[in-house]
Amino acid sequence: MKFQPPKGTRDLLPEDATKFQKIIDVVRSTFEKYGFEPLFTPAFESFELLSAKGGLGEAVKDEIYYFKDKSDRELGLRFDLTMPLARVVTSNPQLPKPFKRYQIEPVWRYDNPQSMRWRQFWQADIDIVGSNSVLADAECITCICEVLDELGFREYFIRVNDRKVVDQMLKDLKVSDKINEIMRAIDKLDKFGKEKVKEELNNLGFDGIKILNLFSEKALEEKVYKEKAKDLFTFLEYVELFGIKKKVKLDLSLVRGLEYYTGLVFEVNLGGKASCGGGGRYDNLMKTVGSQDLPATGISLGLDRIFEVMKENKMFEPRKTDTKVFVANVNQEILAETIRITEKLRKEGISCQMNLTDRNLTKQLEYADSIGIPFVVIVGSEEVKKNKFKLRDMKNKKEIEINLEEIVKKTIALNF
Amino acid sequence: MKFQPPKGTRDLLPEDATKFQKIIDVVRSTFEKYGFEPLFTPAFESFELLSAKGGLGEAVKDEIYYFKDKSDRELGLRFDLTMPLARVVTSNPQLPKPFKRYQIEPVWRYDNPQSMRWRQFWQADIDIVGSNSVLADAECITCICEVLDELGFREYFIRVNDRKVVDQMLKDLKVSDKINEIMRAIDKLDKFGKEKVKEELNNLGFDGIKILNLFSEKALEEKVYKEKAKDLFTFLEYVELFGIKKKVKLDLSLVRGLEYYTGLVFEVNLGGKASCGGGGRYDNLMKTVGSQDLPATGISLGLDRIFEVMKENKMFEPRKTDTKVFVANVNQEILAETIRITEKLRKEGISCQMNLTDRNLTKQLEYADSIGIPFVVIVGSEEVKKNKFKLRDMKNKKEIEINLEEIVKKTIALNF
Repeated sequence: MKFQPPKGTRDLLPEDATKFQKIIDVVRSTFEKYGFEPLFTPAFESFELLSAKGGLGEAVKDEIYYFKDKSDRELGLRFDLTMPLARVVTSNPQLPKPFKRYQIEPVWRYDNPQSMRWRQFWQADIDIVGSNSVLADAECITCICEVLDELGFREYFIRVNDRKVVDQMLKDLKVSDKINEIMRAIDKLDKFGKEKVKEELNNLGFDGIKILNLFSEKALEEKVYKEKAKDLFTFLEYVELFGIKKKVKLDLSLVRGLEYYTGLVFEVNLGGKASCGGGGRYDNLMKTVGSQDLPATGISLGLDRIFEVMKENKMFEPRKTDTKVFVANVNQEILAETIRITEKLRKEGISCQMNLTDRNLTKQLEYADSIGIPFVVIVGSEEVKKNKFKLRDMKNKKEIEINLEEIVKKTIALNF
Repeated sequence: MKFQPPKGTRDLLPEDATKFQKIIDVVRSTFEKYGFEPLFTPAFESFELLSAKGGLGEAVKDEIYYFKDKSDRELGLRFDLTMPLARVVTSNPQLPKPFKRYQIEPVWRYDNPQSMRWRQFWQADIDIVGSNSVLADAECITCICEVLDELGFREYFIRVNDRKVVDQMLKDLKVSDKINEIMRAIDKLDKFGKEKVKEELNNLGFDGIKILNLFSEKALEEKVYKEKAKDLFTFLEYVELFGIKKKVKLDLSLVRGLEYYTGLVFEVNLGGKASCGGGGRYDNLMKTVGSQDLPATGISLGLDRIFEVMKENKMFEPRKTDTKVFVANVNQEILAETIRITEKLRKEGISCQMNLTDRNLTKQLEYADSIGIPFVVIVGSEEVKKNKFKLRDMKNKKEIEINLEEIVKKTIALNF
């Protein structure tokens, strides 16, 4: 009998969990610097709420973990962090507006498992509810850029478009019956390139070249689209003021959730083909779930994607653990001293393990090494008498003999 | 249409979430100081795994959120963090032992909602797998004491007992048919006092006084129990070495999960009647889920309980937000300057919001005040010309006029 994580999910063992936690920490502290406030909500929500997004209705059941509780209440694991936010905003009208909140927690989708896609994955969201200013959109994007800078990304960029322009284009194409097919094709432009998409559009019975030309920057030379792109131009001005204009790429082929977004839309690209999140303005959602009419904008990062790309590109420090010191002892008689040393190091804020077994010293060193702990303090009877202990650097296997105060000083200073 | 959190669950809005996050941070950094490594596991597990704990079997369905996925896999939201740990240890035999891990995540139980009890609640667990030394138990308890110290608790204590002593007592009572009833009665000693429990035991048909005397410290004067209490005595020696003996209370009436624990058992008491966690040694669990025979001990803190007690006892700083500065502006023409100041403060690590609306200054100050932001920088056209800005202390409503460099210095230094 061997148990595995449920299909489509995974564990993060200590080495990975340490790295993943670092991502969460960087994301959180940056979100907080931008004045976003934390929010915690339950993992599951009423099915009624979940089905209210973008007119999904019953169809959402196919894509989520749906279940009933013992009183036959219809529930589902949340598939994003926006619907919980909408619920919170609606049922807490006392919250000051603009309401700037962040939330970093797992969400669940019943997707087919594939590379870099899990049924449980972590999202890190920032949203601003109650400001219709493009400044709010620009601040969100600036914050996301700082997160990616802090994590060490250099090649990333943000694709940006405005749904008001897209809607006008679709109107002008007069193809209301095949809008979704066209948009699905256009949406692949980033992934599959112009030739493939042109072909697909031709196969749908359209003039592929004409449509592709329409959804390109040239369109903005026409007055009708230029007018619809007012927010887009303002946005570009603002991100210039925020100092991140070079990270922003205007892309009229970017669509995202037709039913949902109402203004600027964004997609975060880590360079290459890896998208790690997106968002935009959704001014209709709050009303949909019963709130007063409240404009809203926000963006969501997929932390599992970011984690995988960072691992692949060796962007993490090579260390396996944050535990800095292992305190080894050679016999039980000096246990008191071993505990004293360990506790002294901990009082100084140094993360350490002590020996919890009756293993000999060699086995203890092997253990410390397998965990990846970089320094070992060796406590023996002789050492206790002399009040000097061996500090062993596990990398170069060198040992020095120093007293406890010096061990504290040394280990605080040591980088690894 | 107004949506609420599902029955038995709750949201933590920013003010509470900020406080709750502080608890998580303190708990985590202390766990890490003690050399525990992080672990993340999925929110749900196979029902087969969940039902393996303490021989619960099918009965566990009544107490958990049970559901099937679309391929009819039987799943359930985890009800603790120990079963996921057991699964991880079993399916990853390469993990070095002792395996010291921490996990701080929500768990779910289908309890009847009541005061300080929710259907989703946060647990913070430390466990040591692969050491049968009582030193491991003592280290866990020492770590928990440091967590509670760091959070500001003073009156807390740890009740401790040994299941080996309890088992001997139950054997000697020769009451195998009513063991559970007796244990349930004894377990109430802490909550309801001697008189009530004596009565209950009498009603069960036993000599209440005799049983109560048995489950008291006097029992350890008898050789048979003294021998069974060997680990308990060693534990008391060790916690003396760790410097926390005064926090430990021997309590022979402490039982906890009959089917599950095999040695020392613990309960964490915050003073008064509030228990906020417990644990003990469970040397049989790993074998039950298919691992090699591996001893294990650990302890679990209930963070929601801790949060509620800390709020009740006003143990949190009174601040409503961690956002330190609000940058107000009086018109759009000086937006560039407003952004420059905000971004400068953020670059220095100061958490701040800027105005995202077209409100007048009074409204902006009201907003900052409602969020609880303690300082406001006021940017106006005059100020921009002079390169001096007003820094307003929202508490005493005093304003000083200083330049940007001075604002940075001031706000970094300001405590709130």
